[in-house]
Amino acid sequence: MTSTIVTAAILAIGDELLSGRTKDKNIGHLADVLLLSGIDLKEVRIVADEQDAIVEALNALRKRYTYVFTSGGIGPTHDDITADAVSAAFGLTCEHDAEAMRLLAEMYKRREMEFTEARQRMARMPKGARHIANPVSTAPGFIVDNVYVMAGVPQVFQAMVDNILPELQKGSHLLTRSLPCPYGEGDIGTLLGAIQKAHPETSIGSYPKYDGQRFSTELVVRARDEAKLDAAANAISDMIRGLDAARAGSNPGPEA
Amino acid sequence: MTSTIVTAAILAIGDELLSGRTKDKNIGHLADVLLLSGIDLKEVRIVADEQDAIVEALNALRKRYTYVFTSGGIGPTHDDITADAVSAAFGLTCEHDAEAMRLLAEMYKRREMEFTEARQRMARMPKGARHIANPVSTAPGFIVDNVYVMAGVPQVFQAMVDNILPELQKGSHLLTRSLPCPYGEGDIGTLLGAIQKAHPETSIGSYPKYDGQRFSTELVVRARDEAKLDAAANAISDMIRGLDAARAGSNPGPEA
Repeated sequence: MTSTIVTAAILAIGDELLSGRTKDKNIGHLADVLLLSGIDLKEVRIVADEQDAIVEALNALRKRYTYVFTSGGIGPTHDDITADAVSAAFGLTCEHDAEAMRLLAEMYKRREMEFTEARQRMARMPKGARHIANPVSTAPGFIVDNVYVMAGVPQVFQAMVDNILPELQKGSHLLTRSLPCPYGEGDIGTLLGAIQKAHPETSIGSYPKYDGQRFSTELVVRARDEAKLDAAANAISDMIRGLDAARAGSNPGPEA
Repeated sequence: MTSTIVTAAILAIGDELLSGRTKDKNIGHLADVLLLSGIDLKEVRIVADEQDAIVEALNALRKRYTYVFTSGGIGPTHDDITADAVSAAFGLTCEHDAEAMRLLAEMYKRREMEFTEARQRMARMPKGARHIANPVSTAPGFIVDNVYVMAGVPQVFQAMVDNILPELQKGSHLLTRSLPCPYGEGDIGTLLGAIQKAHPETSIGSYPKYDGQRFSTELVVRARDEAKLDAAANAISDMIRGLDAARAGSNPGPEA
């Protein structure tokens, strides 16, 4: 069995995401979509509308992962600087794209609105970039190499994600199995560590929950091979049964 | 008037945040708290439970900002590797802290629970780190230099944030004023860019909204000086009134 590993990062751009004024909706949406495509989301960054910050994050992420998806900063106002920053990161000139100008001019003519200088900013992108169609408000996103630049408005972002999805390389689906566990991490930590060591081709996550009184955990096994997933999940179920039996030991019930 | 700029980054650690299985609650909480303290949140990163990823992010962020706050990865299981990663980032040895061992041993004795090897992992931290008290479940967070390492479970994270807040340097409060604007960014972009240029000591953000039919915007002015904030906000109000008048021009109402 061969498996294809495809990785991704999300770079969300915008002061409003850092000031707490806007709760981001794009990261969660794209994380879910990537999971279904077998693409491993490995890192998320949120940066301000500052060119240096965007360039640095973009150059770090695009060299490290198969894909980088950005959101925000491609509108018509002075604080929309993503096109300039992406151009700078790739050493390309940022210019008014002829096809984008045509699409936008047509749309505004149809709507009897002026195609202002500000609106023309939305046609700017790195020279040679490919478009991402925007069925909501026309102004396209764009693709340079492995970087997909999309709008921040959630309806537009999601429409753009739908449009790029068919061209993305799919990864082998990561199989996951979730096992609720009534014991806290302190009770299971040593045993669980041993299970992880014995099943190296799986990844076992332990997520503590606290109900205000006591801790329990949710244990999640991930693997690309179903037999290996089963083996690790079975070992965890055995561990939980063993702890149940030990707890019941001094007070056996009718079936014990 | 002098103003103090205090900056911060958040580093959220955990595979579960990237797989979409857990929606992070700590970033939004801390962003709100920092805003109230006048501390500028400049960057957020979410990385997996992988030592290299944590070390690299931490070393980048701690050199760049006044404070770095981390969440997650300080529990008792094998995937809790934040203490090791922070130690590695600072070149310190990671060891069982004597005071943390004492606190945990006492707590488990009181609760008649075994102080397992897994639970002892929660006492590990970089040599010489200071504690962050954990009133919820005892196991402390810790502080090394300008890095504050806290738990991922939201109740514990929030309690730890409450405990560190008194020692953080406060920044000059960033004043903000929000102006709803019925016009889309394309209508206001050029005018707004000119206003931003004329008010360089303010930061004017433009946040587009889309109701399914048309765009409007929320305009937010930020400044540390109230007079400068007022001046920019007044210029924006004038701009909106000017657009209203232009729109009403061909069809004057009874008061026009």
